[in-house]
Amino acid sequence: MSSRRRRIYEGKAKILYEGPEPGTIVQYFKDDATAFNNQKKGTITGKGVINNRISEYLMTRLNEIGVPTHFIRRLNMREQLVRQVEIIPLEVVVRNVAAGSLAQRFGIPEGQALPRSILEFYYKNDQLGDPMVTEEHITAFGWATPQDIDDIVALALRVNDFLSGLFLGIGIKLIDFKIEFGRLYEEEMVRVVLADEISPDSCRLWDLKTNEKMDKDRFRRDLGKVEEAYQEVARRLGILLDPGAGDHRGPATVQ
Amino acid sequence: MSSRRRRIYEGKAKILYEGPEPGTIVQYFKDDATAFNNQKKGTITGKGVINNRISEYLMTRLNEIGVPTHFIRRLNMREQLVRQVEIIPLEVVVRNVAAGSLAQRFGIPEGQALPRSILEFYYKNDQLGDPMVTEEHITAFGWATPQDIDDIVALALRVNDFLSGLFLGIGIKLIDFKIEFGRLYEEEMVRVVLADEISPDSCRLWDLKTNEKMDKDRFRRDLGKVEEAYQEVARRLGILLDPGAGDHRGPATVQ
Ligand SMILES: Nc1ncnc2c1ncn2[C@@H]1O[C@H](COP(=O)(O)OP(=O)(O)O)[C@@H](O)[C@H]1O
Ligand SMILES: Nc1ncnc2c1ncn2[C@@H]1O[C@H](COP(=O)(O)OP(=O)(O)O)[C@@H](O)[C@H]1O
Ligand SMILES: [Mg+2]
Ligand SMILES: [Mg+2]
Repeated sequence: MSSRRRRIYEGKAKILYEGPEPGTIVQYFKDDATAFNNQKKGTITGKGVINNRISEYLMTRLNEIGVPTHFIRRLNMREQLVRQVEIIPLEVVVRNVAAGSLAQRFGIPEGQALPRSILEFYYKNDQLGDPMVTEEHITAFGWATPQDIDDIVALALRVNDFLSGLFLGIGIKLIDFKIEFGRLYEEEMVRVVLADEISPDSCRLWDLKTNEKMDKDRFRRDLGKVEEAYQEVARRLGILLDPGAGDHRGPATVQ
Repeated sequence: MSSRRRRIYEGKAKILYEGPEPGTIVQYFKDDATAFNNQKKGTITGKGVINNRISEYLMTRLNEIGVPTHFIRRLNMREQLVRQVEIIPLEVVVRNVAAGSLAQRFGIPEGQALPRSILEFYYKNDQLGDPMVTEEHITAFGWATPQDIDDIVALALRVNDFLSGLFLGIGIKLIDFKIEFGRLYEEEMVRVVLADEISPDSCRLWDLKTNEKMDKDRFRRDLGKVEEAYQEVARRLGILLDPGAGDHRGPATVQ
């Protein structure tokens, strides 16, 4: 099927194909994993399948509470149909607990609760290493308007509130996450909507009791059991895929 | 202990006592239940204990995400210490799904999702039957200022996002809920904070799969198993009290 479709873009974790109708695209979720701005590369078997399902679930639930998203429907194990948007070239990071680059940059111990949730913008540009930026840079270079930024902040905080609650309900602490937004053109209107994906690739998720990491940090830091951790997130969300229904290439005995 | 304390107020579900320090009060949670503006009265055995614990848990979690509340700490099975506030005489209702009076007033089938979350204000006054009011009434009669209302709306929507996620995570749909706010005077400052309680008395909670009611509607509509439903909510929140640690008056065999 993919052979008949025009490939629009291949990224680090997903491939974009032209969708069946104008204004739609197909996101194909790969098992490829990268970290530290592409310096570390690898594969997490089955990750694409799990992330496709988790992102479908979270985007659908967010849509239901009135957070507009690009998501239309999941097509199969590795693909979902989304509305094509004009991606705003910002990685929007919301942090509840110090971890990763914030812990490092400010010398705060990883795991320390922040005085309040902190929202950060990074300019989405692999060549430049996704540098952190302020609203000054964003509006001066024209990546987003002040109105876009207002919409992005309001939506990102709603996503944080909802996901913090949802993950807490399944025994997981939402430490931080990265999301992307895009402009959706409909008739004479343009709206800012949530795009890309939400998955253990883009969130830090710690088990509430043990603080065990259940996200891409297991890959970044070679902690092992990466796929198992992603699967456990899906299981707790109540959306674990039938293990027999995977996109296996053949019976286990033959592999 | 209660005998030494001054009783400030006895309401339908709780008694307020003077707290140990100025500016604090003790909320004692009763088993009494009322409905339909006091026309129906009854008792739900153990309700006060469960609601004290659930409200502690939810207020604490909301505090952690930056929603200011009156809650200080739970004192014992039926009592919690809270900051005394000047209660804003509004019942603030947030609805995600049509139920109760909204379903009736607009002829919408109970259980139908609303086009978006709807926030309503009721004037808290038992004699008047808690009439629904608009911002016009609220500001004209001086119950709250436009600034108070802005704060209330923003906080109520955050509470809705967080609790919707939290309950979804434990297989429960948050249909609607009622909260109260108060003005907290600290030094030269005044802030609007969440007060009163959040519990199955003040929320509509439906099991996600079966739509079974897990809230005070079981009492209102004589559906039975009221205490069991409240307990199941606590169990799913992971805070079910040790059944042996209750405030029983004696061993079961003696009662
Ligand atoms: N709805 C959408 N419309 C257009 N582009 C999108 C949409 N959702 C996500 N994208 C973009 O598609 C790409 C997804 O692939 P990914 O492997 O994550 O790429 P990258 O390596 O650039 O992060 C990202 O560049 C993302 O910005
Ligand atoms: N922090 C607080 N400070 C002062 N009053 C409060 C606070 N929290 C709740 N209240 C009030 O205490 C009472 C709680 O008891 P309740 O049985 O619910 O009363 P009611 O029958 O009036 O609803 C309510 O009237 C509520 O407005
Ligand atoms: Mg990406
Ligand atoms: Mg009350």
